[in-house]
Amino acid sequence: MKGVILGLAPRARIIDLTHEIAQGDIRSGAFALAASYAFFPRGAIHLAVVDPGVGTQRRGIAVQTANYFFVGPDNGLLSWALARETIRAIHSLENKSYFLPKVSATFHGRDIFAPVAARLSQGVPLQRLGPRLTSYVGIEWPEPKPTGHGLQGEVMYLDHFGNAITNISAREIGSQINCMAVFVRGRRVGYPAPSYQAVAPGRPVSIVGSSGFVEIAVNNGSAAKLLRLRVGAKVELRTQRAGK
Amino acid sequence: MKGVILGLAPRARIIDLTHEIAQGDIRSGAFALAASYAFFPRGAIHLAVVDPGVGTQRRGIAVQTANYFFVGPDNGLLSWALARETIRAIHSLENKSYFLPKVSATFHGRDIFAPVAARLSQGVPLQRLGPRLTSYVGIEWPEPKPTGHGLQGEVMYLDHFGNAITNISAREIGSQINCMAVFVRGRRVGYPAPSYQAVAPGRPVSIVGSSGFVEIAVNNGSAAKLLRLRVGAKVELRTQRAGK
Amino acid sequence: MKGVILGLAPRARIIDLTHEIAQGDIRSGAFALAASYAFFPRGAIHLAVVDPGVGTQRRGIAVQTANYFFVGPDNGLLSWALARETIRAIHSLENKSYFLPKVSATFHGRDIFAPVAARLSQGVPLQRLGPRLTSYVGIEWPEPKPTGHGLQGEVMYLDHFGNAITNISAREIGSQINCMAVFVRGRRVGYPAPSYQAVAPGRPVSIVGSSGFVEIAVNNGSAAKLLRLRVGAKVELRTQRAGK
Repeated sequence: MKGVILGLAPRARIIDLTHEIAQGDIRSGAFALAASYAFFPRGAIHLAVVDPGVGTQRRGIAVQTANYFFVGPDNGLLSWALARETIRAIHSLENKSYFLPKVSATFHGRDIFAPVAARLSQGVPLQRLGPRLTSYVGIEWPEPKPTGHGLQGEVMYLDHFGNAITNISAREIGSQINCMAVFVRGRRVGYPAPSYQAVAPGRPVSIVGSSGFVEIAVNNGSAAKLLRLRVGAKVELRTQRAGK
Repeated sequence: MKGVILGLAPRARIIDLTHEIAQGDIRSGAFALAASYAFFPRGAIHLAVVDPGVGTQRRGIAVQTANYFFVGPDNGLLSWALARETIRAIHSLENKSYFLPKVSATFHGRDIFAPVAARLSQGVPLQRLGPRLTSYVGIEWPEPKPTGHGLQGEVMYLDHFGNAITNISAREIGSQINCMAVFVRGRRVGYPAPSYQAVAPGRPVSIVGSSGFVEIAVNNGSAAKLLRLRVGAKVELRTQRAGK
Repeated sequence: MKGVILGLAPRARIIDLTHEIAQGDIRSGAFALAASYAFFPRGAIHLAVVDPGVGTQRRGIAVQTANYFFVGPDNGLLSWALARETIRAIHSLENKSYFLPKVSATFHGRDIFAPVAARLSQGVPLQRLGPRLTSYVGIEWPEPKPTGHGLQGEVMYLDHFGNAITNISAREIGSQINCMAVFVRGRRVGYPAPSYQAVAPGRPVSIVGSSGFVEIAVNNGSAAKLLRLRVGAKVELRTQRAGK
């Protein structure tokens, strides 16, 4: 992909966001993109490929928002980032003159998305790429639900260190977070704390992570392993009264 | 290696092809290079290091072809890519004034190949690097063999996703591929299909992959794991008659 | 981190040294940095983040030496590299106008160290970043100790291939190294040799590695696995008399 990009756009700057998304895990890819894209300079082209449906009829799209461009398969991968942006235009990638001359059945990242992104970086307007669309495929963001004691959310993403990032936004909870505990499978696994080292090594802790969501971590360890957490695992935040 | 390159050639663009070749696995390195090098811009310098013989008498070479430069150990790593190129010149890396001042016994990538590649990027001619050679060390490409029912080939490369890429080129088979099935250890593991998702999740499928070879994959899974495939495993393509 | 850097310093060249340091393993990070930093061009900014104490009171620092800049947490990570350099100035990172507007509790690499490094690359002087310090947090480098038979050292770093790099510098031993054997847990595991392939495949060998230290390797294998070596494992070099 990078060789193709530099062949078309020799001055492009290429940054890898992550190569650690599990095969076909569109949701984790969507989370990683949504958590990171806004830290890139305005005008950046976000080229994302988690593409289990490559070779089928799933579309490829390019999207222009108020701040960025996005290119990738139209399978929901881009949708959590796009939901935070003001959409200017969505186009289906159908103009083969912007693809590599020979398109394989299994690697549209190299054959379609990379050359399209390279062309966008040189100012080719979206409308040249294919017909305008009025929507893109979205994946539903699971909203945390109120419970008798607090909020129930779920694990959205396991990072490189085994930290389990949930869908519970610190902004929604506000200052209440300081009197809440985190439960997994009915067991209290930790209290919100200001740092990983607020607990002893090997102990779980809850913390507001770098993407603004409550995460479960283990000081000097892996929450994913210690607490056997997977993406989708239910997590509850419960208000704790003094003495309880 | 990259620090050394940028010290000598501050404007060089450096792209990582892969860091996933297993230790000392020259054949997988040779396959990855042969499958990818032609997607880089003309004039690119392909610096490859899978070098189990570092510190022995094995040579280092720089090769100029009609389109590219190649630099690395002369152990076969470059040979499958070179076999597809028109060779212009091969030189042995012997001129120490192009190496780092101190050459270690274990990391010629940093001490020899990186500075040589940096100098090539600045236009230093090959003949300055050392004496001209008339050949390079090749590793034999195993050609598929005809069987009573079709063709027998072998697994050449296991990619990041566990897809098993064979030495059976789709070009050789032509349209016959649509009436062939793939067998491993006598068991039919799949029919050629246009996409990974042509079969149910967890099921094996055969597909013409992005480097033009027949590959065995598992939809949403790893063929290497599910079918216990290793590099060198025998794979047979058999013609299937209707009703069989 | 890279998105943040390019937003502030669009022409910065960014090189990844390694992403393979285990979570919170400050010593391995310090070793990798000390072994590699001097191969980068003069003036390079070494931004290092192994930061288990993120969110606590541990300081962040920027250090200018005769040849380089270093930025990271003041937890010892930079100390083995700094011990080899002539220090010009050490400053505590306290001026929030050089941070991202919102600083998370868990990712100072992105929110503090990356923007500071970007600003340094543009010539912002160290004194603007915060108050001058007179020292930095060091981690003790364990010196090898003389034994009755030679020297006892320890494993400092396990590399990508499972090679175990010790704290025994080849320079200290000099030519004696050629009549010494390496022992682990009282068992002789190898003699110093000029290359990995000086022994049969699967056999251990000792070699002076690319950072100038004695390392234990296995030809075509992993010393870490075969000899069950971990960071901190004791390693002895013993003089061998002829016939023993």
